Amino acid sequence: MPYIPLEEHLPGITGLLEYRKDSAQPIRELTQILLRGQSTFTEGERELIATVVSSGNNCTFCTTAHTAAADLLIGNTETAKKVKEDINTAPVSGKMKALLTIASMVRESGKSVTPEAIQKAKDEGATDVEIHDTVLIAALFCLYNRYVDGLATALPDDSGYFNVLANRLVRHGYTRLPQGYDHLKKEKI
Amino acid sequence: MPYIPLEEHLPGITGLLEYRKDSAQPIRELTQILLRGQSTFTEGERELIATVVSSGNNCTFCTTAHTAAADLLIGNTETAKKVKEDINTAPVSGKMKALLTIASMVRESGKSVTPEAIQKAKDEGATDVEIHDTVLIAALFCLYNRYVDGLATALPDDSGYFNVLANRLVRHGYTRLPQGYDHLKKEKI
Repeated sequence: MPYIPLEEHLPGITGLLEYRKDSAQPIRELTQILLRGQSTFTEGERELIATVVSSGNNCTFCTTAHTAAADLLIGNTETAKKVKEDINTAPVSGKMKALLTIASMVRESGKSVTPEAIQKAKDEGATDVEIHDTVLIAALFCLYNRYVDGLATALPDDSGYFNVLANRLVRHGYTRLPQGYDHLKKEKI
Repeated sequence: MPYIPLEEHLPGITGLLEYRKDSAQPIRELTQILLRGQSTFTEGERELIATVVSSGNNCTFCTTAHTAAADLLIGNTETAKKVKEDINTAPVSGKMKALLTIASMVRESGKSVTPEAIQKAKDEGATDVEIHDTVLIAALFCLYNRYVDGLATALPDDSGYFNVLANRLVRHGYTRLPQGYDHLKKEKI
């Protein structure tokens, strides 16, 4: 039972983004820029950063949603699963291992990020912008996870919900649906 | 020494907001809406939420900046100081004590917020929107603190810097300075 009155058919973050639309807008825009904007990362790699942070924060809604998005974008269900279990043995590049490790440090605290972890990422070929974006995406999901769980938002009743949501995040991104997509709103996500 | 190349004369968050201006814009807008937009909170009360979260996260730049802003807005240096020391004995209303306690819980984890803490805030007269905004402001400063410290940004050399910054935050808010304010840019904040 959420701590504030949210629309029952809008679980997790979706009800919060409808609750206060003016603050929702820059949150959506920031996410779109970081997760779908121009980048040397693939969209799947950026969803893995969101997934590893949300998983570490035990945020069920965000972890399930971004795992489903990562699975769709990467084309398998193994990569996100293994990244959540153990970054070091997951089937991702050395650069992504180093960056996902930095994301996990950011999740704990900004002060947990060590010069050695940064050097490792640079040695593996990470650029300054990639390091910047990793830290900011991790910090953004620390916001999301706290927003979603700090107000005790609900999980969807239907486990198929996350597949529909992931499809939307992959096809339409994080900004509001444009006009003409009202049929998607009826999917209640 | 920051982990990525930032302009030396721009310490803390200010160098990061210049480093990637496209992602900076929605971060600025979200902060302006939450900390300076229409609200039943005073601006000083909202700066106290930012201060208590930043202090709990040991983020020196953010704590010093928002303490200075709270001091200016509230008109004394005691309130923010005491809130950082002990919310329960600080000279703020029962409602603000309950909400600052929720902010501290959000800082730890979204899952740390208890139904009892929410009920206490409601009993003290907090509205649903005030509870929502407290959680989101606390979550936003969990983002800021991680962004600032996760990239090892520098502190200013001059301790007077934070007074200039606080004056700007009180007079002009969190969005970019409008045209015609170039003289303030020369203050290098």
